[in-house]
This record gives sequence, C-alpha cells and structure tokens, in this order.
Amino acid sequence: MILTVTLNTALDLTYGVPELVPHASHRVSDMSERPGGKGLNVARVLSALGHETVVTGFAGGSTGAVLRELLAGLPTDAAAPETAPAPITDALVTVAGNTRRTIAVVDRATGDTTQLNEPGPLVTTDEWTALLGRYEELLAGADAVALCGSLPPGIHVGAYAELVRAARAAGVPVLLDTSGEPLRRGIAARPDLIKPNADELAQLTGSREPMRATRDARRRGAHGVIASLGPDGMLAVTPDGSWQAAPPAKVLGNPTGAGDSAVAGLLSGLVEGLSWPDRLRRAVALSTATVLSPTAGDFDRAAYEELLPRVGIEEHAPAA
Amino acid sequence: MILTVTLNTALDLTYGVPELVPHASHRVSDMSERPGGKGLNVARVLSALGHETVVTGFAGGSTGAVLRELLAGLPTDAAAPETAPAPITDALVTVAGNTRRTIAVVDRATGDTTQLNEPGPLVTTDEWTALLGRYEELLAGADAVALCGSLPPGIHVGAYAELVRAARAAGVPVLLDTSGEPLRRGIAARPDLIKPNADELAQLTGSREPMRATRDARRRGAHGVIASLGPDGMLAVTPDGSWQAAPPAKVLGNPTGAGDSAVAGLLSGLVEGLSWPDRLRRAVALSTATVLSPTAGDFDRAAYEELLPRVGIEEHAPAA
Repeated sequence: MILTVTLNTALDLTYGVPELVPHASHRVSDMSERPGGKGLNVARVLSALGHETVVTGFAGGSTGAVLRELLAGLPTDAAAPETAPAPITDALVTVAGNTRRTIAVVDRATGDTTQLNEPGPLVTTDEWTALLGRYEELLAGADAVALCGSLPPGIHVGAYAELVRAARAAGVPVLLDTSGEPLRRGIAARPDLIKPNADELAQLTGSREPMRATRDARRRGAHGVIASLGPDGMLAVTPDGSWQAAPPAKVLGNPTGAGDSAVAGLLSGLVEGLSWPDRLRRAVALSTATVLSPTAGDFDRAAYEELLPRVGIEEHAPAA
Repeated sequence: MILTVTLNTALDLTYGVPELVPHASHRVSDMSERPGGKGLNVARVLSALGHETVVTGFAGGSTGAVLRELLAGLPTDAAAPETAPAPITDALVTVAGNTRRTIAVVDRATGDTTQLNEPGPLVTTDEWTALLGRYEELLAGADAVALCGSLPPGIHVGAYAELVRAARAAGVPVLLDTSGEPLRRGIAARPDLIKPNADELAQLTGSREPMRATRDARRRGAHGVIASLGPDGMLAVTPDGSWQAAPPAKVLGNPTGAGDSAVAGLLSGLVEGLSWPDRLRRAVALSTATVLSPTAGDFDRAAYEELLPRVGIEEHAPAA
C-alpha cells in the first residue's frame, strides 16, 4: 500500500465561463466538483496505475463531507478490468473547521484559468496530535509515503519535518512535495525524495540553474532530488546517479496536476523496484499525458502508453 | 407576516483578494458565507425592521443544508432590544439538486467586484408542485408577498405569473422583482407592484426614458411600478399618483443588495399602511444606507435613520 498525506485537502470546483471579464457578473456555463489537494490527486493516479492507496490528512465541515462522499464514489471497477483502478481508502482525520474550496475559473474563449484558493481550516493542536497517531499506525502497513501540498492555518511550519522523521524511523521511503518554509524545514529531516519545480527550487536555493540548484537541495538534506522542469522534463540527482528525462516533444495543454502525476509515477516505480531511468520514464510520460488530458488533473491513458517508450533519458557524469 | 419567495436561493460567498489578476493564482485573504438569493436578502432587511417574515422557495444538497443552517443562525435577539430583529421562519421546500453558490470576488485594491453565479439545481415538476402547495398554505397567513429573483433550471418561464395569480386570488398584495421573460410573463398576471431597475425596464419596454418606460410597464399589467434609478432614487407610478424620490446626495459604495432593501422598504411600508411618499422615503433611505454599509447587502442603521427625513419627494402631475 502507498500512503499519501494531504494536510490541506480541498474541494476543487471548476467553473467554465464564456469569457472572464474582471468587475463583470458571470453566469457559470458548466461546472464540476471533485476531491482535491495534491495527495488526493497523487492517490487517484496511483489507483489508476493499479496501486492500492490510503489517503490521510484533514477534512471537516460541510465541504469536507462532500469531499469524502466524492472520494468514496471514485470509480474502482471500470468496464475494462485490466485497467480497473485499485481502491483508495479514506483515512482522513475529521476536523471541526471547514475543508477549503479551490475554484478554477476557466475562460472558455481562451482556455486560460484563473485560480482562487481558500486558505483552509484552522487546525487545532489536538487535531494535529490525532493526525500524528493515525499516520504512525498507517506507516506500519505502507511501502512508501508521499507528503503533499501546503499547510493549513494552525499547523506549525516544521510539521513536514516531523512526518519525514517518523517515516524514516519506520523505515518507509518518503517523498516530500511542498514549497517555501515547510519544504526548507522538511528537507533538513532528510527525506528520500523531493520533487520541486523550477520556481520552488529557486526559492529554496536562490539558483535558477537546474543542476546547481538540484545539487544544493541535496546538500540541504534530501537524498534524491527530482526537479520538474515543465516541458523540458525532469532532472534527477540521486545517490545512484544523475539523469535528465525529457518527453519526445513539447506538448500544449493544461499543466494542472502534472506534478502530482509525476509523484505517482516516481512512487509507483519505487515500490515496483524499477530502475531510476524507468521510474523517470514513467514520471515524465504520466505528467505529459496529464497535460494532454482534456480533464484537468487526469491523465490520458492512451497518450501515456504511447509516450512511455519514447521518453528520452540521458545519464549525467557524476559531480566532481 | 410578510412572505418572500426565492425560487433560486444561493449560498453567497464573498472572497477578498489583494488584486484580481486574470489567469493568475490567488490566495483568498478573507471570506464570508451567507444565505442569499433576493427574497432571503429582503427577509433579512424586513427582520431588521421588526417584521416577522417567512421565506419559501427551494433549497437542496449540501449547499442548501449550509444555507439553512446559516439562516437559522441569523441574529434574532440583538443586544439592543428596541432594534432586535424579528424572526425569519424557514419554509423552504427541499429539492434533490444542490442549491447554487454565488461567488463575489472583491479586489481589495480597488473595491471592485467580479461575480460568478452557478445556474442552480434542476427543479422537477413534483418539486414545483410541492412549492405551489406550500405557497398557497403560507398565503393564508400573509399580509404581503414578494416574489424575487431568477428561476432555477426546470422551472417554466410562466412560474411567476402562476404565483402572482395565486396571491391575487388569496387577496394578498404581491410585489414581483425579477427580469427578462419571467418578468414579462409575470406582469401580464397583474401584480400589485414591480420594482425594475433602469436596465430591466429598458429590456421590458424598449425605452430608457424612465417616465415613458414606467407608464408602458403599467399598461402591460402592473398596477404600480417603482423604477429604481440607482443614485437618482426612485420613480413611482401607481394608481394613487406618481412620485419621484431622491436621496439627499449621491453616495459611493457597494450597490449589492440595494434593490432588495428597497423591496423591503416598500413592503414594510405597505403592511404598516404608510402613504406612498413615506414608503418611498423608507425605500430610498434603506437602499442608500445599503450602498453605504461596509458589508455588502446589509444596511447601515445609523445612516438609514439619518437619511430618512432627508429623502426628497416630488409629486408628478397625473399623465394626460
């Protein structure tokens, strides 16, 4: 089982409008609602890849109840049994506050998206303690764990460092995917992997030069750093070597969720014992197939299978 | 008791953002959530004026449940008993669909608002029949009724005409506040009052000249027409005479809810047996005090009391 942790889950709403005009009134022409937050997105992709996952983190209030209902209703027995998703188990901790909503307003004329994110519920010390207990129980049965996304109000900035240490004490490989100060603190606890994008890496290290920034991030404590470079693919610097992986061609589409698909690719590859080049192929093919999908955050399975053997891998010489 | 009908109730969310930038991602800096839809706004103002009100219409799903919780929690015993709000009774009909959300995104740099309105739940024929039954029961105890706002999907365009006819058959004065085709059809059923704004009136009659358009609207069936002219106040053309009412000075602020406050002023004045000039004074003072309030849709009581004696009233000569 793969465990994903989403401390700031979200009810993700997508509103289509004919054209977004600031200061005007808009009638929403189409809308959808789904369970969100990075760890839940990772779990959905892992499930589609056939990996049993358990999701924990916080959910509360009426929005949290809707999120859990939608999570329970995700398809688990598709028509084609060979690609039937594996179950996603809800191990979220209930909090008193309301789970946040995020709203993606999609301009149907241009396809551009304007994003509005609520901050999330204020989580109490008791709720955090309950999460820690639940997390330690779940680690006992986990093959790997992903810690994903922003912290809700009330959670101390060193929270991810605490969760990284607990995973390492339990001997469970841990991937940390967050940004800013929670990332800086979390790295110092020595996670197995981090997966920053170019902006997160620059914010962490002060450098926009990928190889230099990635090596700097390793010196700060991360065993392996997989930098996602958008359309240029990924740069992996690990204890076993360094690789650059790139999609066969640049693609146009909606990058929402591409990073979460990459995390699912890396973790599933780790659990299956794939080599680094194969893990990176999977991560790059999944994130490219997510950009290509008409539904934000889902990946296009046919595109994924077609891309997988065509991802370019280049090994870098070890650093001097 | 005054009855208000809101067929398309809404959970109104207000999101403050430092600055709204299309195609960017925004962290919501402050937010509020309240029960909305025009008839619910009218009821809140009536309650603040000391009038017992009953609200009916449709509510459903998780958003409908939150709306009803918030409605039940509206203050009914303020610290100052002389201005304690009167009770608002929830007589909403439960539907299977989800009550819509509306989102007002307020740019805190400029104060400008960008509005996103979900369309509302699909209402079935059985649910409409249930509403008609509830409405006829409630009319028996009502001194006046306001029919407010847009129609949700599934409701036939002549719905307001049906509700106007039922009110007239029950001998209950009825005010209709809607727009477009539902207004056109509703007027033909001869409501006691309509309260269009300049745009709604122009859409109905083809004229932007207030006196001409207001008289045209009366010929279409409305006994009295109260045209709200924004900062210029109101023009009333009724069987008892014609008046123009204007605030003492133009004010700056958020006009959201000003029309609903005017409806509350007109209806409360009718039920209290006030003269037309006094009803208009109240309506103009309330809607101006709503523009001045820091909270969208609430009125500033001190401003209301200060404005009331200063509203200018001018009687027009009868039409030739």
